[in-house]
Amino acid sequence: MAQSPAIEGLKEALRRLPGVGPKSAQRMAFHLLARDRDGAQRIAEAIRIALERVGHCQRCNDFSETDLCPVCASPRRDHALLCVVESPADLASIEQSGAFGGLYFVLMGRLSPLDGIGPDELGLHRLEALFDEGQIKEVILATNLTVEGEATAHYIGELARARQIRATRIAYGVPVGGELEYTDRGTLARALSGRRDV
Amino acid sequence: MAQSPAIEGLKEALRRLPGVGPKSAQRMAFHLLARDRDGAQRIAEAIRIALERVGHCQRCNDFSETDLCPVCASPRRDHALLCVVESPADLASIEQSGAFGGLYFVLMGRLSPLDGIGPDELGLHRLEALFDEGQIKEVILATNLTVEGEATAHYIGELARARQIRATRIAYGVPVGGELEYTDRGTLARALSGRRDV
Repeated sequence: MAQSPAIEGLKEALRRLPGVGPKSAQRMAFHLLARDRDGAQRIAEAIRIALERVGHCQRCNDFSETDLCPVCASPRRDHALLCVVESPADLASIEQSGAFGGLYFVLMGRLSPLDGIGPDELGLHRLEALFDEGQIKEVILATNLTVEGEATAHYIGELARARQIRATRIAYGVPVGGELEYTDRGTLARALSGRRDV
Repeated sequence: MAQSPAIEGLKEALRRLPGVGPKSAQRMAFHLLARDRDGAQRIAEAIRIALERVGHCQRCNDFSETDLCPVCASPRRDHALLCVVESPADLASIEQSGAFGGLYFVLMGRLSPLDGIGPDELGLHRLEALFDEGQIKEVILATNLTVEGEATAHYIGELARARQIRATRIAYGVPVGGELEYTDRGTLARALSGRRDV
C-alpha cells in the first residue's frame, strides 16, 4: 500500500542531506510529523532564510551574509598571514582552536583532475590576485592530507613561492592525547618523517 | 569569530532532526549551502507540503492525507483482523513484509506510567470503540519487546478478551537468517520459551 505522497516527498527530500539514507529519512519524516511539527516548521524557515541571506565573502570565499565576512573585515587580524583551507568546515575548526589570527582563503574544494577540477574550476586566479596585492608574507596550506589535498597544497605552494611568499604546511602527526599503540600506520609514518629537533 | 546568524540558525534548526548532533548539523548546513541549494529548497518545500497535508486517519490513527487512510478505506483488507503497532514506522515495516492483510491501529506511543502516558493519553478509548463495533475477531499485538511495549500489549489484550476478541502476540525469536552463535541472550531465551511443536 503506497504511503501518502506528501510523506514520500518529504522522505525523498530529506535524503538530499549528507549521510541520510532511506531508513534515516523515514525516521526523520515520521519524527517531525508525529512529534515535532514546530521543529519541522523551524527547519523549513531556517533553510529559507539561509538560502536568501548566505552568500560568499568576496575576499576569502567563506560563507558570509555580507560582501566582506567578519574575519576579513576585522582590523585585528594579521593580513600578512593567509591560511588556505578546503571548506568552511575546516575554517570553522581552525577558528575554534583559537590558534590562528590571520586571514583565510576557502577553496570550496580541491584540485582533482579526475573529476575535472583544475585551477580554473577552483578559482585559483582569485587566490593569485590576493597574492599579487603584496600584503601576504606567508601562506599556510591547511588542505587535507589526501592525495588531492597534498596536490592542491603543492600547487598553491608553487604559486606563492613564484611571488617570494613563504609557503608552509600545517603539521600532521600523532594527535594530542593520542596513544602510539592506537595510531594508524600512515599517521605514524608522517609523525616520524616530520620529526623535529628538541 | 561568530559565524553568520543565518547559518547558526540553520544548524540549530537541523538539530531538531533525530540523530543529528552539532557536528552533523554543521555538515548538513554547509553541504546544502555550498553544494545543494536546490536540495535545500526541495527540503523546505517538502516540509511545507507535508505539514499542510498530512494528518491522521480517523480510524487507525496512521498518518494520512485523507480522513480515512488507503488501508482502512480498502474493501480488500480483512476487517476482522486488527494489528496494533506503536508507530507508523512499525506499520510501514509490516506492510512491506506483505504478510498481513488486515487493518491496523497505530498507538503513536506506548503505555509509560513513569512518563505520564496512561490509557487516556494513548487514546485507547478509540481502540475500545473499534472493538465495540463488533467486526474484529482477532487483535494482533505487535508492540515492541520492551517493558513498556509488553505492558501495552498486556493491557490491550485484556481489553480485547473482555469483549471475547481473540488477542495474539507476534512471535519473537531468532531472526530468519540469524545464527544462534551471534544471537543475544534475551532473544535466545525468548526463542526457547516460545518453542513450538514440529
